[in-house]
Amino acid sequence: METKKFLLTEKDIPTHWYNIAADMKNKPALPLHPGTRQPLKAEDLGAIFALELSKQELNMTDRFIEIPEEVRDVYRNYRPTPLVRAYGLEKALDTPAHIYFKNESVSPVGSHKLNSAIAQAYYNKKQGITNITTETGAGQWGAAMAYACKFFGLELAVYMVKISYEQKPYRRSIMQSYGATVIASPSMSTRAGKNIITKNPNYQGSLGTAISEAIELATTTENCRYVLGSVLNHVSLHQTVIGEEARTQMEMAGEYPDIVIGCFGGGSNFSGLTFPFMRDTITKGTKTRFIAAEPASCPKLTRGQFLYDFGDEAGYTPLLHMYTLGHNFAPAHIHAGGLRYHGAGTIVSQLMNDKIMEATDIRQLESFDAALLFSKTEGIIPAPESSHAIAATIREALKCKEEGTKKTILFNLSGHGLIDMTAYDSFLAGDLKNYELSQEEIDKTLEEVKKMQ
Amino acid sequence: METKKFLLTEKDIPTHWYNIAADMKNKPALPLHPGTRQPLKAEDLGAIFALELSKQELNMTDRFIEIPEEVRDVYRNYRPTPLVRAYGLEKALDTPAHIYFKNESVSPVGSHKLNSAIAQAYYNKKQGITNITTETGAGQWGAAMAYACKFFGLELAVYMVKISYEQKPYRRSIMQSYGATVIASPSMSTRAGKNIITKNPNYQGSLGTAISEAIELATTTENCRYVLGSVLNHVSLHQTVIGEEARTQMEMAGEYPDIVIGCFGGGSNFSGLTFPFMRDTITKGTKTRFIAAEPASCPKLTRGQFLYDFGDEAGYTPLLHMYTLGHNFAPAHIHAGGLRYHGAGTIVSQLMNDKIMEATDIRQLESFDAALLFSKTEGIIPAPESSHAIAATIREALKCKEEGTKKTILFNLSGHGLIDMTAYDSFLAGDLKNYELSQEEIDKTLEEVKKMQ
Repeated sequence: METKKFLLTEKDIPTHWYNIAADMKNKPALPLHPGTRQPLKAEDLGAIFALELSKQELNMTDRFIEIPEEVRDVYRNYRPTPLVRAYGLEKALDTPAHIYFKNESVSPVGSHKLNSAIAQAYYNKKQGITNITTETGAGQWGAAMAYACKFFGLELAVYMVKISYEQKPYRRSIMQSYGATVIASPSMSTRAGKNIITKNPNYQGSLGTAISEAIELATTTENCRYVLGSVLNHVSLHQTVIGEEARTQMEMAGEYPDIVIGCFGGGSNFSGLTFPFMRDTITKGTKTRFIAAEPASCPKLTRGQFLYDFGDEAGYTPLLHMYTLGHNFAPAHIHAGGLRYHGAGTIVSQLMNDKIMEATDIRQLESFDAALLFSKTEGIIPAPESSHAIAATIREALKCKEEGTKKTILFNLSGHGLIDMTAYDSFLAGDLKNYELSQEEIDKTLEEVKKMQ
Repeated sequence: METKKFLLTEKDIPTHWYNIAADMKNKPALPLHPGTRQPLKAEDLGAIFALELSKQELNMTDRFIEIPEEVRDVYRNYRPTPLVRAYGLEKALDTPAHIYFKNESVSPVGSHKLNSAIAQAYYNKKQGITNITTETGAGQWGAAMAYACKFFGLELAVYMVKISYEQKPYRRSIMQSYGATVIASPSMSTRAGKNIITKNPNYQGSLGTAISEAIELATTTENCRYVLGSVLNHVSLHQTVIGEEARTQMEMAGEYPDIVIGCFGGGSNFSGLTFPFMRDTITKGTKTRFIAAEPASCPKLTRGQFLYDFGDEAGYTPLLHMYTLGHNFAPAHIHAGGLRYHGAGTIVSQLMNDKIMEATDIRQLESFDAALLFSKTEGIIPAPESSHAIAATIREALKCKEEGTKKTILFNLSGHGLIDMTAYDSFLAGDLKNYELSQEEIDKTLEEVKKMQ
């Protein structure tokens, strides 16, 4: 009986997050004020984010940052998560590759998002903040933040993209069950929302609008800050708890990964798993391939450009130096809602530019084929986002078969798909399709961004 | 930092199921042929169920039955499950009681049902059976069986109660994603279904009808057997893997439960957790209270009678000696679909009659109040079924507070509620209600059963 699951105990929960920026030769660019073009300081960011998070955002020197005891205490509700050897998938592919996955789907909200939500709630609480605002698209981040705020006794208001609010009532109800207030965006509760509704009463919302509303509420409410679930450096930092655990678990398995794969939206789960392994690449010259699996319909890493751009559609955020498709890029309505983001975060963008990592694009139908194969061989129905990582893993495992090479592949199962079954329903009914994205479309949204450089 | 989770490793997965019937002084009654009133033999049951399962059903002598290596191998996909100390809930209740729960919600289908589904699929496969039929109400059992059949290479047809098929598309899609065929019941694929549709084209289905269809398909299809997810002795047997693990984990916690609680539908999760602890009660005289938490709208244990009755509405099954509300009892449409069953299984009924266990009834609104408190304090949204166990736990914990006694309470979190969020939605909107059940209604359905004695 070979071991399938590599389990750690509570005492093995990492004590430190890994700050890869400290080890990078070419540091990620600092966020710039859109008007002055001057790098922002922690105090500037502190108007929107908790001060400690703002400091983490700009920290380029401390390699390891201690995880507060209070955060580890809530991590203990679901961490450490299992590392699993995917024997069933290996057998189905008839590959000599060894496939492992880190199972972040076991968190009570079903995804990795909690790892940063808990930390962000903690630092806000510690600063004496009482109210939090955020936005959510499909609802994964909002659910995680609702959970975290409940634990630290914070009030949370979530602006949920209107079309998701109506079409994904499950995630809305999860947030409400944890005690959060959920507002369909655009709403009449902010100036930004009112302006949009006045112009277009039937507007179905967008992540950009929801961000604007959440930031406006945060800056106009007493003792309130805004939080974000991806893209930013401090979010990636918190997610490294995934990779730190995985390093220990791969040692238990007696292997070291040749390839590490994560799906890619804003970068939070990808960074979380890969950065602790990249440490060996950067500091010891280890030859591991790191592959970001992004949707072909939102290919910022494979077809975007490395430019200064806004983090949101409306242009309210600082300028970030990142691989981008342009902040006005409107991704197709793929079911992997968590991957529908135009940019990549400054650390990952720098690593990409320095060729420390690579990216591949996965079409929607390939992602669902991979998801069903994984469901039937490993028994876990993956989130549509995570299915992109599975598809990229299958590609690499089949290459191993062709070449007759035994590689060790590790991927991140960032979440389960039990709350996304309508997507599977559509796929099984043959109603899903791939989206073709022309170079003209990308050029068009990037044109405006290039003018800003 | 006190330990919250008591975790076992793969090697700690129990090697044997516990057959409580062997220890019972008053044995559970054998199933009777409805015509001859003679006890059925394994060969008789073998026409419908796999022979090994039929033998387990009637086994009153072997205390421990070895779990086949092939079954343990699939158990390793999610077992052992955690035992958790519910510090958050204790604090919210301000109780001196110590509350623990066994977290069966971590299974990939979200409930304990897999424990028996895997075993049943295995024994059918071993016998050379190729096709399986079953029925499902809300979909928990069907999803578990779909998972298990995929692992053992069996074809599965699930008759799903029509109203659930239409109202609960998530669970239907889960079954389909695992490769099962799902048919809305009543259907035109069986004589039983056709008869009903001909009489009433708009009939929304019932568990009784779905059982009839599944049994008919099993007996008219080559190399096919039927499986059931609760009520029967062999199902309870397989579920004891829960309690055997929990015994070890309570030892790790350094405590022994004064009270053990499970929600109660047909008895599978309740039996699974409690029987291994009842072993001490029966063989050593340990004083532990075992409480079955049933819905007030379907109170077979608290208000039913101990009679011979059919296991299904249509009267196709053998006669079982059990606490029953009558096989024609139509439970109210509470959201805890898994608890809407008229009878209690012969072992539990005998234990109830012998006062080794007790029962309490929980109203729907109390169960959802308990569920929300648990969600907000422990971070896991429980299944509506499991919420009944939580409500009973809260009652006992508050009694401890009143009396100033420190008791150790253990309950079974049989599943999570992430696929039941519409129920939470209705509760949060104030649309749910309690159902009053008059003695006249119970007397009426029992009248017919009494004539059969």
